[in-house]
Amino acid sequence: MNHFLTTENLDRETLSGLLDEADGFAEVLTRPIPKVPALRGKTVATMFFEPSTRTRMSFEKAAKALSADTVSFSPGISALSKGESLKDTVLTIRAMGVDLMVVRHKATGVAWRLAEWLDIPVINGGDGAHQHPTQALLDCQTIRQRFGTLAGLHIAIVGDIKHSRVARSNVFAMTTLGAEVTLVGPPTLLPVDVESWPVNTTSDLDGILGSTDVVYLLRVQTERGGASVFPSFSEYAERFGMSMARMNSLKSEAIVLHPGPMNRGVEISHDVADSDRALILDQVANGVATRMAVLFRLLEGDHDA
Amino acid sequence: MNHFLTTENLDRETLSGLLDEADGFAEVLTRPIPKVPALRGKTVATMFFEPSTRTRMSFEKAAKALSADTVSFSPGISALSKGESLKDTVLTIRAMGVDLMVVRHKATGVAWRLAEWLDIPVINGGDGAHQHPTQALLDCQTIRQRFGTLAGLHIAIVGDIKHSRVARSNVFAMTTLGAEVTLVGPPTLLPVDVESWPVNTTSDLDGILGSTDVVYLLRVQTERGGASVFPSFSEYAERFGMSMARMNSLKSEAIVLHPGPMNRGVEISHDVADSDRALILDQVANGVATRMAVLFRLLEGDHDA
Amino acid sequence: MNHFLTTENLDRETLSGLLDEADGFAEVLTRPIPKVPALRGKTVATMFFEPSTRTRMSFEKAAKALSADTVSFSPGISALSKGESLKDTVLTIRAMGVDLMVVRHKATGVAWRLAEWLDIPVINGGDGAHQHPTQALLDCQTIRQRFGTLAGLHIAIVGDIKHSRVARSNVFAMTTLGAEVTLVGPPTLLPVDVESWPVNTTSDLDGILGSTDVVYLLRVQTERGGASVFPSFSEYAERFGMSMARMNSLKSEAIVLHPGPMNRGVEISHDVADSDRALILDQVANGVATRMAVLFRLLEGDHDA
Repeated sequence: MNHFLTTENLDRETLSGLLDEADGFAEVLTRPIPKVPALRGKTVATMFFEPSTRTRMSFEKAAKALSADTVSFSPGISALSKGESLKDTVLTIRAMGVDLMVVRHKATGVAWRLAEWLDIPVINGGDGAHQHPTQALLDCQTIRQRFGTLAGLHIAIVGDIKHSRVARSNVFAMTTLGAEVTLVGPPTLLPVDVESWPVNTTSDLDGILGSTDVVYLLRVQTERGGASVFPSFSEYAERFGMSMARMNSLKSEAIVLHPGPMNRGVEISHDVADSDRALILDQVANGVATRMAVLFRLLEGDHDA
Repeated sequence: MNHFLTTENLDRETLSGLLDEADGFAEVLTRPIPKVPALRGKTVATMFFEPSTRTRMSFEKAAKALSADTVSFSPGISALSKGESLKDTVLTIRAMGVDLMVVRHKATGVAWRLAEWLDIPVINGGDGAHQHPTQALLDCQTIRQRFGTLAGLHIAIVGDIKHSRVARSNVFAMTTLGAEVTLVGPPTLLPVDVESWPVNTTSDLDGILGSTDVVYLLRVQTERGGASVFPSFSEYAERFGMSMARMNSLKSEAIVLHPGPMNRGVEISHDVADSDRALILDQVANGVATRMAVLFRLLEGDHDA
Repeated sequence: MNHFLTTENLDRETLSGLLDEADGFAEVLTRPIPKVPALRGKTVATMFFEPSTRTRMSFEKAAKALSADTVSFSPGISALSKGESLKDTVLTIRAMGVDLMVVRHKATGVAWRLAEWLDIPVINGGDGAHQHPTQALLDCQTIRQRFGTLAGLHIAIVGDIKHSRVARSNVFAMTTLGAEVTLVGPPTLLPVDVESWPVNTTSDLDGILGSTDVVYLLRVQTERGGASVFPSFSEYAERFGMSMARMNSLKSEAIVLHPGPMNRGVEISHDVADSDRALILDQVANGVATRMAVLFRLLEGDHDA
């Protein structure tokens, strides 16, 4: 594994191996001194061209827990604003002694361009509506912690699938790990090539609740034009929002996930968000452990820590 | 002590103990390698919803001197701007593996809300016009270094008391430590409930100079509506500004304090600010030591370092 | 050496000594763990009043490779925006326990003011159109690595000399090290006092290519009013831009340097920028090593590491 760009080409063994490694790092994070020296002397650059606190902080925490240094690139005050090309910017930062780059960008495919230009590993931290593979990994880890496996589980991903890199990354990771995935949303918010995806689709959320183990709620992303087919947030909540009534229709052991940040009262009600079946903060905590696993795999490969 | 939110409920023993600990850390800061491993493996998050360099840097320096890691939250680029609630934001950051939060916010009481929501210690780094308890601690340490004790000292706090969290925190800390505090300002800039405070009040600065050991000058905070009862900065300076003439009316051993940033020529004249009786840079240096004491107390409690 | 403000007053021995030290640190940077404990316990503050990612990151990387801590000052959110004077701001930050400041400012001479006010070393990270001495150091190191010495080399610096701190710093460093420097640009973009500089001047780039060892291309700095005597970027490129045709007129061993960020297609063509005779990324990498040398010299002086 040279880069971590997408979940589409990962086989079950690779994904399972990363989750095993993540479980080990999750244990590290519970120690009094939650650090290992595995990546001492390495430098990880977070290149976030879209604003994000959550994902950037999670990667930086993961890097530091492995004793790596981090440098944080802010496009607003960079040479990009003086007309430098993206390629020259990343080559320059690499030349300063960076060992791995995490990149988030609003344009699809930017992480692949960096991987072409650079002689160091690249992690896709989210490219447009395309892929966000470490998010899928942390979601799968959260599910596996609860159920022991994803094989045979019924997972419903609910919302604006079309504009969601989270959905796209999760569909491929979850199905590779043996889950059966159903996309739930209005037909206009399904991806145009959904027939080629290994999924079921429906627009009837209530019809599938009784047979679902994991309900994965997508964020209504007003900033990417999602939910624009709905006249109002309250109509969205009525058809696709997770309410207490809907949660009570789930199997007793079923769980609710959300990538955050939540719009309480829209895709998830207040009481569902605060219930102990919503594992949203577990997802956040697992984000650090899974990113440690990816950083370690890319920078240390088969070596022992 | 689970949190550090206000000076109002701290007894003399607790305050003195913190100052003793701060004196010890001040010694650490003079060493060739000014660090101790006391908080190795801990992570301190600075959550500043109001812009501040000074206080944030001081806390980060204190955390690093104790070998803790720091993460710095910037609301402008966070999920808050995507509609996430404050509670979900802080719970998310805590779930990433944060051990203590320092919060500054323009709204009174925000630090108390965080303390309710979180299972980790919270330090109030300034909430509106309400409290700024670590500022009071560093001021008291600076005074104690000079006079050996606060007991029996006459301290004048001068300026816009009503809008000052610095004044409010200091009044309770200084009087608990045995000082006699006089608030000096126009009646309209005294707090509405000042009768319940353990202080004297006057609007005649010149009348008390001869009997004062410490003159504490508040910043004229144009951004919070202070000094609006004055037609001009020069009129403020004339009635309440510390000039060389006024400093010469003080006892020979009296000192001048200011929390910074100073408006030279308004509440303090240039020559007073630069005189060796103005201990403003000592206050800054002590800020690091006292914040080390608070961080250590909250994260290590009664344990030895 | 108490400060590092300008190349004008540095003798050949001092410059050579710094380059020797930089070569040693360049070797450190190739180790599996590219760090030495030389400056453990020291804190370096980067005070950038002009936006810059490149130079700030380079200094921070250098400081961390020497095991120093860094603090990064952002004027936009600082007390300066509340009316504090620059002097009080830097004294305050120094009082928090800073051991060295790197300052960049759009006004000429600001680094000298800081050096007067402070009792710690100051590095000029660029002041207006005046000096940028660490840039000159990294350029000289890059040239010396290739040619073994600067003595006797013919170096052409091309572009808007008048507004370039990079040119000014390089002229004095390069000539002190024995190179013969020719400034190439339109007469209106030469400095007014150029007669007192130890250089040749010409406006005919093509006339000198055959006898030049190093072509140093300056950035067309639209933000400082450079190139305004040219009706268009394409006319600039035609007269002073480095094209493949011009590169082929150079001696076979000649090299091309550029301080970055590049305006591809203006002062340098795409194919020249990507050729292996353009050592632009070597300059970037050497920036870290030379800044390590300067930091170490200022903070450790003659002591061994």
